Amino acid sequence: MQVFFSETHKRHQPRHEFIGGALVPAFDRPERAEQIAGALQQTGLFKFDQPTDLGMVPIRAIHEQDYLDFLSTAFKSWQAAGLEGSPMASNVAGSPKGPRPEYIEGVIGYYANSCETTIDDGTWEGAYASAQSAINAARYVTTGQGRSAFALCRPPGHHCEATRFGGYCYLNNAAIAAQYLRDHGTAKTAILDIDFHHGNGTQAIFYDRADVFYGSVHGDPLLTYPFYKGYSNETGTGVGAETTMNLPLGADAGNDEWLAAITALLGAIDSFGADTIVVSLGVDPHHSDPQSNFQVTTDGFSRAGHLIANAGKQTVIIMEGGYSADAIGPCVAAFLQALDDTWP
Amino acid sequence: MQVFFSETHKRHQPRHEFIGGALVPAFDRPERAEQIAGALQQTGLFKFDQPTDLGMVPIRAIHEQDYLDFLSTAFKSWQAAGLEGSPMASNVAGSPKGPRPEYIEGVIGYYANSCETTIDDGTWEGAYASAQSAINAARYVTTGQGRSAFALCRPPGHHCEATRFGGYCYLNNAAIAAQYLRDHGTAKTAILDIDFHHGNGTQAIFYDRADVFYGSVHGDPLLTYPFYKGYSNETGTGVGAETTMNLPLGADAGNDEWLAAITALLGAIDSFGADTIVVSLGVDPHHSDPQSNFQVTTDGFSRAGHLIANAGKQTVIIMEGGYSADAIGPCVAAFLQALDDTWP
Repeated sequence: MQVFFSETHKRHQPRHEFIGGALVPAFDRPERAEQIAGALQQTGLFKFDQPTDLGMVPIRAIHEQDYLDFLSTAFKSWQAAGLEGSPMASNVAGSPKGPRPEYIEGVIGYYANSCETTIDDGTWEGAYASAQSAINAARYVTTGQGRSAFALCRPPGHHCEATRFGGYCYLNNAAIAAQYLRDHGTAKTAILDIDFHHGNGTQAIFYDRADVFYGSVHGDPLLTYPFYKGYSNETGTGVGAETTMNLPLGADAGNDEWLAAITALLGAIDSFGADTIVVSLGVDPHHSDPQSNFQVTTDGFSRAGHLIANAGKQTVIIMEGGYSADAIGPCVAAFLQALDDTWP
Repeated sequence: MQVFFSETHKRHQPRHEFIGGALVPAFDRPERAEQIAGALQQTGLFKFDQPTDLGMVPIRAIHEQDYLDFLSTAFKSWQAAGLEGSPMASNVAGSPKGPRPEYIEGVIGYYANSCETTIDDGTWEGAYASAQSAINAARYVTTGQGRSAFALCRPPGHHCEATRFGGYCYLNNAAIAAQYLRDHGTAKTAILDIDFHHGNGTQAIFYDRADVFYGSVHGDPLLTYPFYKGYSNETGTGVGAETTMNLPLGADAGNDEWLAAITALLGAIDSFGADTIVVSLGVDPHHSDPQSNFQVTTDGFSRAGHLIANAGKQTVIIMEGGYSADAIGPCVAAFLQALDDTWP
C-alpha cells in the first residue's frame, strides 16, 4: 500500500500538555509516528513517499484564512508578548464568536476549543506537512493510482474545527482529504472515525453538509474527552440532517461491540451512497492504550481492516491518535495489511 | 460603615492558576483580604462583623442546585479519581450544555467558563462564607440598618455564572446580593461594576432580566480577560433589552475617563429607576495593579465613592478584584470613606 509520510512532523515537539490540573509530558510525541513508520517498513509491504507540496488551496477549503494566519504566527506573537510558558489557551471564546481580541492570550482562546494543547515553534510546519500527507493520499486515490492510500499524519486532525484547534489537532487532515475528494470528482464522501475519541472537529465541519457523511465509534463522552460532543442524538442539521452518526460505547468495549459498531457505520455509509471512505484511524481503542478504556486487540484492528475493505469503496486512511508505544505500530500494520489483503 | 468579613476566606488557598501557558502563583491570595481589612481597621471608621449564616436559600436564588453540589464536592471527586494536580478544567462545555459528563475532568469543564481557576480543599467553605458576607450586607441595607454596607468578599464573584465558575469566582456575590434585595422589597436593583475586568458572570445572570440593571466600566476585552464578553454592543436581551450597559475603556485610561464612565453608568441607573445599587468594587483599575492597564489613582477611587454616594441610593458594596499589595487597602478605604463622608 502507498504511504505518505513527511519527516517534517518532527518539527512539532510539544513540550507538554495541560490535563488533570497539571502540565504533563505531551502524549503526541514525535516517536509515535516513527514507531508506526517502523512497523510498516518492517513488513516490506508498504511504499513510502514524502508528500508533494500541494499548497494551501486544499487546506483553505476547510479552514478560514484568519485561522491559518493565526496558527502560523501564534508562537511568534506569544514570544513577542514575553509570555514564558508554551502558547496555550486558558479560556475559550465559545459560539458564536464575538470580536477577535488583539492580545495574544485572547487570540489563542478565540481559536481554541479546549485548553490542553500547545502551539510550539514548529507546530505550523508539522501540521502543514501532516495535511499535505492527507492531501497526497486523497489525490492518489482520486487520480486512480490505487484503491487506497495511507497518510501517516502527525499531528492528528479530527478534534480541529474550521477555526479552532484543540485535542492535539491543528488542521483537520481527514476533513481536508474528504473535501479534496469532493472537489476532485467524488460526489459523496464518508468519513469513518474509529479513533477512541469522538472527532468533534470533523463532525462540526460537516454537520450541516449533505455531501459528506460523518460516522464515529468512540468512548462514551460521559467518561472521556471531548466530553461535550459525540452523543448519539447528534445526527446533523439542516440539509445535513441524518448525515452524522455517533455510536459511543461504554467502558471495556471489546472487539465484538467495536466491530459491530463499525459494521453499523459501514451500513449507514452504504445507504448514504458514498463513493469513497476516509478513515480516521486512531489505534487508541487498543486495550493497552493509556487514554482508552476499550479492550480492542491488535486482531480487532485486522478485522476492522477486513470489514472496511469489504465495503468495496475507495479508501483514504488518515492517522489520528494512539499512544501505546508497543501497540500503535502493530495495530496500524494489522489494519492496513488486512485492508490490502482483502482486496483482489 | 458596617463591614461584613469572614475569616473563613482563609480556607480558600489556591496553590496556583493557569495563565500564559504556565501554572503560576495564584493572584487571589488570602493576604489580599487581610490587607484590605487592615487598611479599613486602621482608620477606626468601620465596624467589622462576621456574617451571620443566612443559609443556602439566597444562594440558590442565583445558582442551580447541581452546580452547588458540584462545587462542594469537586475537590473530593478529583482526589478520588487519583488526579494529582489541583482541580482545574482543561476544556469547557460551551453553550448550550449537553449531558453532564460522569468523569470528573468532564464534570469540571461542564461547570467552568474558563480554565485558569482551581477548586481547592477549602474553596467551597471560602466561597460560601464570602457569599454570606454579601447576603448580610444586603440584609443590613434592606432592613434599614443603614444606607450602605461593605461585604469584604473573598473569593470574588463577578466572573461566575449561574452554573459556571471561572476567573477566581465560584459564587456570584454581587448577583446574590442583588437578588436578595429584589426578594426583600426592592423593586429595581442596579449593579455597578467598576472592577478592571468585565463581570461576564453577572452580566450573563441578568442579561434577560428587566428588574436588575447591570452596568460596567472595564478594560477593553480586546486586550484583557474575559476577552469574549464586555463589548459595548452587549445591551441585554428579551425583556432585559437595554438593561445591560458596557463601557470598555482603552489602555491607559485615567481618572477622567474612568469617572466619566461611572457618571454615565449612574445616569443610566437613575433612568432605569433603581432603588438600590450593588457596587462590584474591584480596585484593580489602580495604576499599580499587575492585571490592569488603567492609570486610576487612589484619589480616583475616592472621587468614585463621592459620585456613587451622590446618586442618593441605598448602596451595597461587594469586594471583587485588586492585586496590588500596596494599593488595594488604601483604594478600598478611600472609596468607602468618600461614600460615607458624602452622605449626611
